[in-house]
Amino acid sequence: MKCLQLLQSRILGSCGRSRAHSPLKNYNRLSSTTTNSQAVLQKDLKSLFSNPPLENSFVQTQGWIRSVRSMKKIAFVDLSDGTTFNSIMIVTSPEIAKDLQTGSSIMAKGSWVKSKGKNQLYELSVTKPEDLQVIGNVEENYPLQKKFHTAEFIRSLPTLKFHTSKLSTVMRSRSFMEYKLQEFFQSENFIKVNPPLITGSDCEGAGELFQVESASVVAKKLANPQDKQITPFFGKNSYLTVSTQLHLEILAQSLSKVWALSPCFRAEASDTNRHLSEFWMLEAEIAFVDKVDQLTWFSERMIKHVINGILTNENGALDNLLKNSKRSKEELLEIENRLKVLQDNNKNWYQITYNEAMDLLLSSGKNDWKYLPPVRGSSLSTEHEKYLTNEVLKAPVFVTDYPKDEKAFYMKINPDNETVACYDLLFPVMGELIGGSVRESNYDVLLKEIERRQMSLPDLQWYLNLRKNGSVPHGGFGMGFERLVSFVCNIDNIKDAIPLSRSIDNCDC
Amino acid sequence: MKCLQLLQSRILGSCGRSRAHSPLKNYNRLSSTTTNSQAVLQKDLKSLFSNPPLENSFVQTQGWIRSVRSMKKIAFVDLSDGTTFNSIMIVTSPEIAKDLQTGSSIMAKGSWVKSKGKNQLYELSVTKPEDLQVIGNVEENYPLQKKFHTAEFIRSLPTLKFHTSKLSTVMRSRSFMEYKLQEFFQSENFIKVNPPLITGSDCEGAGELFQVESASVVAKKLANPQDKQITPFFGKNSYLTVSTQLHLEILAQSLSKVWALSPCFRAEASDTNRHLSEFWMLEAEIAFVDKVDQLTWFSERMIKHVINGILTNENGALDNLLKNSKRSKEELLEIENRLKVLQDNNKNWYQITYNEAMDLLLSSGKNDWKYLPPVRGSSLSTEHEKYLTNEVLKAPVFVTDYPKDEKAFYMKINPDNETVACYDLLFPVMGELIGGSVRESNYDVLLKEIERRQMSLPDLQWYLNLRKNGSVPHGGFGMGFERLVSFVCNIDNIKDAIPLSRSIDNCDC
Repeated sequence: MKCLQLLQSRILGSCGRSRAHSPLKNYNRLSSTTTNSQAVLQKDLKSLFSNPPLENSFVQTQGWIRSVRSMKKIAFVDLSDGTTFNSIMIVTSPEIAKDLQTGSSIMAKGSWVKSKGKNQLYELSVTKPEDLQVIGNVEENYPLQKKFHTAEFIRSLPTLKFHTSKLSTVMRSRSFMEYKLQEFFQSENFIKVNPPLITGSDCEGAGELFQVESASVVAKKLANPQDKQITPFFGKNSYLTVSTQLHLEILAQSLSKVWALSPCFRAEASDTNRHLSEFWMLEAEIAFVDKVDQLTWFSERMIKHVINGILTNENGALDNLLKNSKRSKEELLEIENRLKVLQDNNKNWYQITYNEAMDLLLSSGKNDWKYLPPVRGSSLSTEHEKYLTNEVLKAPVFVTDYPKDEKAFYMKINPDNETVACYDLLFPVMGELIGGSVRESNYDVLLKEIERRQMSLPDLQWYLNLRKNGSVPHGGFGMGFERLVSFVCNIDNIKDAIPLSRSIDNCDC
Repeated sequence: MKCLQLLQSRILGSCGRSRAHSPLKNYNRLSSTTTNSQAVLQKDLKSLFSNPPLENSFVQTQGWIRSVRSMKKIAFVDLSDGTTFNSIMIVTSPEIAKDLQTGSSIMAKGSWVKSKGKNQLYELSVTKPEDLQVIGNVEENYPLQKKFHTAEFIRSLPTLKFHTSKLSTVMRSRSFMEYKLQEFFQSENFIKVNPPLITGSDCEGAGELFQVESASVVAKKLANPQDKQITPFFGKNSYLTVSTQLHLEILAQSLSKVWALSPCFRAEASDTNRHLSEFWMLEAEIAFVDKVDQLTWFSERMIKHVINGILTNENGALDNLLKNSKRSKEELLEIENRLKVLQDNNKNWYQITYNEAMDLLLSSGKNDWKYLPPVRGSSLSTEHEKYLTNEVLKAPVFVTDYPKDEKAFYMKINPDNETVACYDLLFPVMGELIGGSVRESNYDVLLKEIERRQMSLPDLQWYLNLRKNGSVPHGGFGMGFERLVSFVCNIDNIKDAIPLSRSIDNCDC
């Protein structure tokens, strides 16, 4: 063991990377070219803009070229690194800029100076050729030249599309909104949990399922289609979840207040602007809740917390959305309007019952419905929801107490025995953003409803059993996160609200 | 339209739920029993303990009974609601407590008084029978009585297990750690993204895959095994991702700094303490990184940010871990030691090369390896990793520069052409916690490596193409989130680090 100790002291005595202010600085055992500063990340543009260097100091930046404009005596290179909507204008000579191309990655060093330009505060003055280096070139015919591209065209370039200011803005907004949601739930004493994605049953019946099986079991089955002995990986058929709610109820039944932001899956064969096969759903489940009002009020506060963060420009969130030269004035104005409609702090959002919503729709006089007209007793279609919010109310609205047969089995039936203690939050343009309800917490009542609906009791027995021991009134809701992102960012196709979308025939990269 | 306007004003004029301080208070259109206070959630125990009510004020609480102790003149009911490790002691008469049982949910109202007990600051004095109501009873033979239960037994009760203080503590810790990670990445200007879970290829070859198919396509195939015309939902075979890294690289290639906390899936048939079929992986990908040191230093800061939040008892995180009467003193001491080993701020974690790790292992004199002994040129096994961290270094260690054939195709090959610019972070007890590397960013070099390994080029073409336009040096890492949770919470089986685990033959609820 002596030998080991000697070796240990030889190696460990000199361990530790060399870093700024490290007491181990003298034990730098890495190559001598590795200085302290080389163990930190390069400074990103967001840091440079939020904590600007001293004027005229020498600064290094790196990123991708958005555009190059060369004139007789001067050249402007617009450089972005994606961490902020802001780009840095590199001012240099036409000679230095002569081979630069949109889309290339470069490293540039120069003086940090106040800009005379209208659209940026600072610019980088690069004077020496060796201070501007191309890191990665682009191919000839690089598709994202500085001109207008349709959303469809951009979507067809999945590995390049985030170089567009529109989609990088959406990604930054999405990230900020998730951060604000996390902050909200943390401040409300909720526990974030990760319920399982693979489930043994389709409990909610909310659309087409994806089935999951180990690839080697699938291969075995293909090779021996007659062999009934091949057992599934999980011992039974398994599926990707359509909602984590039922599992969240387990957790709420002990931890009181839980939430999840989790992928959910629906194998719907339709390929629309509104549907994804794989999407992220925010779900919350709360114990000791017995009134829909508790849930609607909570949902409203949750969304307003996010919107408030944007409107106060926290972390540059409002600038990120609005300071986007590539979008039309109308598009940007629409974003502003949407945020204002949501936020008006002196006014709570509307809340009406399903029956009142029907009153409004049926008496509207509208008779040119594109699809089915509203019928009392049937659910609201997206067209009805949009008409209600866009035309009648011009605002978000909670619609409560739908007919029980239009909603899921677990919702608490109201004393009228006709409606359930549920709500949908309808947004202008989007239609349904949130759906939630008080859950039935009585074993016998829930059992009766499962039987009335002729659902599979064995699959639901564990869920039903939650009502056997220490059952409490509880409720919760689910919100399609991409829908919120789409609404706030004013994008028409939900495929643009998630980095790489999945839908029928669409799983390419 | 006049009719609609009248109806609108009738309904909308009286819209708005009744809430505290709401200007719409007079328009309460809900039942008269709905008062303002009824639209808010019940106060949870965490709120009560962090903002205690005035002494002797009348307070309502609710939760689940952990234990009941009745004596001649007095009874103690220990009540928990899961939002905090703290429970509230209800002091009442044996008469009032006589039918109460462990596991039942109750609502209790009483005076909030300073406690004379050693283990709690406050208690609730309940004097009237009607102030203590059972919400939900338990069955006879309720399994979680106040006595010692093995982890296996508790795990066998998935719908009840979070009533145990051990597992509810894990859930609260996990939630807190995720919050701190989100905070860290936000402060570092990273953008959180959600890469797809369903992918068209097994790019990394990291273990067995799950295959995904629409349930209706599976059913069609079963019914017509000979029919080759049935097309997959996505137009080709698709799988659940084993790592989001390749997609993260798309995003880093435009947004510079991205991270994800995402479910990943491996269909491994082995059922051990260390493996899950479905687990959550934190992955980060960073542009303009060309040195492993940048990644190890960043990883260390990330974990220390989380640990620091715990050690400073932010949000009660340290109390949550340590004030747990149901765990042995040894277990709690071990948690303290682990946190201290990680945090020592005056000391950076060790960083050695793979070759130096081999030197230490081969010269250790140890010859009673349970599995294969270490061999230079081969990877480190979990046994080697644990020996290195538990016995030799007694600390976490970054091991860098593994032989290239032991690592993935995308890692940047070092100038020696033998090793790659990679690292594993090894933790005592756990073994590997993080794996990361600088990625090869040159198209031709990466193509050569894909060919050398005889991998499927068509599947990887989009990934390779990322190196065609504006390619930049970059790197990243992945961390198994449940491993960090297991380490911090000192739990032996990773199945206890996730709410409801999935593994072979285990998908029951």
